[in-house]
Amino acid sequence: MATHARHGSGWPVKRHPSSESHAASNEQKPGSPRLINLYPLTNYTFGTKDPLYEKDASVPARFQRMRDEFDKYGMRRSVEGVLIVHEHGLPHVLLLQLGTTFFKLPGGELRQDEDQILGLKRLLTETLGRQDGAAMEWTVEETIGNWWRPNFDPPQYPYVPAHITRPKEHKKLFLVQLPEKALFAVPRNYKLVAAPLFELYDNSTGYGPIISTLPQTLSRFDFNYN
Amino acid sequence: MATHARHGSGWPVKRHPSSESHAASNEQKPGSPRLINLYPLTNYTFGTKDPLYEKDASVPARFQRMRDEFDKYGMRRSVEGVLIVHEHGLPHVLLLQLGTTFFKLPGGELRQDEDQILGLKRLLTETLGRQDGAAMEWTVEETIGNWWRPNFDPPQYPYVPAHITRPKEHKKLFLVQLPEKALFAVPRNYKLVAAPLFELYDNSTGYGPIISTLPQTLSRFDFNYN
Repeated sequence: MATHARHGSGWPVKRHPSSESHAASNEQKPGSPRLINLYPLTNYTFGTKDPLYEKDASVPARFQRMRDEFDKYGMRRSVEGVLIVHEHGLPHVLLLQLGTTFFKLPGGELRQDEDQILGLKRLLTETLGRQDGAAMEWTVEETIGNWWRPNFDPPQYPYVPAHITRPKEHKKLFLVQLPEKALFAVPRNYKLVAAPLFELYDNSTGYGPIISTLPQTLSRFDFNYN
Repeated sequence: MATHARHGSGWPVKRHPSSESHAASNEQKPGSPRLINLYPLTNYTFGTKDPLYEKDASVPARFQRMRDEFDKYGMRRSVEGVLIVHEHGLPHVLLLQLGTTFFKLPGGELRQDEDQILGLKRLLTETLGRQDGAAMEWTVEETIGNWWRPNFDPPQYPYVPAHITRPKEHKKLFLVQLPEKALFAVPRNYKLVAAPLFELYDNSTGYGPIISTLPQTLSRFDFNYN
């Protein structure tokens, strides 16, 4: 159902090396979908806007709503965007910081039957979009990874664990190609931080299992430092 | 004495419910290049051949040769193949086991100016190719990740660390699409084992930082369980 929308949404049409010689040259080839343009953090301007509160007031409330909605609608589908800038040639991932110790990627829950790419764009605009109504230019690129939550509790895995026939949530991460320059409006209850890869690497205590392995899942890309 | 890829030996044997595929396939695009065909482990036959010894007799010798060759030729380029089979719908990665505790991916060092894809195919054939001279059918697919070794010592990172201008080794991992059936000949000093993702996940103590994060780096693919 999403095929047309995805092709119309910046999905690389072809990323398969179809021949040996092509495959051999996938190092920094212009036009290669793996080549991602990064721009300096200073190209982006950060304003503020009204607070954006989470739907659930507590962790127990969160899992209760997940149960209720699972009974009604089935597995929750979530999408998150990996937005990357650079500072002096080092890639930094944009993270939303809530309080002093909690970090998350921009994104959230898809609506029933909502297309995942359109849904991610909607969620990115809700979270970081400017308030003057100007359209945001989100280019959703390749899938970074998939995570599944087998039960109504915190653990998530990058595969469906054995014996789990009905995961409770499926979370999909996408690489988002940022425009060269942009103004982001950050909800007042969050801070937007740019975390370098070495800060995230091997740091699941600080960032959780998903964000802390972004250095590994991003290592396949050729970044072009503009 | 035939060596069969070990599966479940020491690991709990779990059956994967066939209904799992609904979760994994809810975003599958027919014809998507991310769709990777997996075949059952039982489709593959494992023979043995003469031992294949590592070039270096010890860890100090290994880093001394790395130093010597760095001075002569520059950064070492290594390539490794991620070969995946399935058992009852669960992906398993083929690993070479040396002794009781050391596991590695098939692959090795490229020669000077050797093409990385051709080099990986050469190394896979040296390691797992049959001895009757029949050509092996290796289909090298997308890049899984890149790792860099900043110094002449064990640490490797999925990025070039800050201030490192001349990494000592660059290792590139590729997904290799296996043919539907094949005969592999395993050097007598190795065992070939098929490790399920849940065995690798979050287990860098057992498998090192690269193999233990394969579940994350592979999670973006849609696997087709034949």
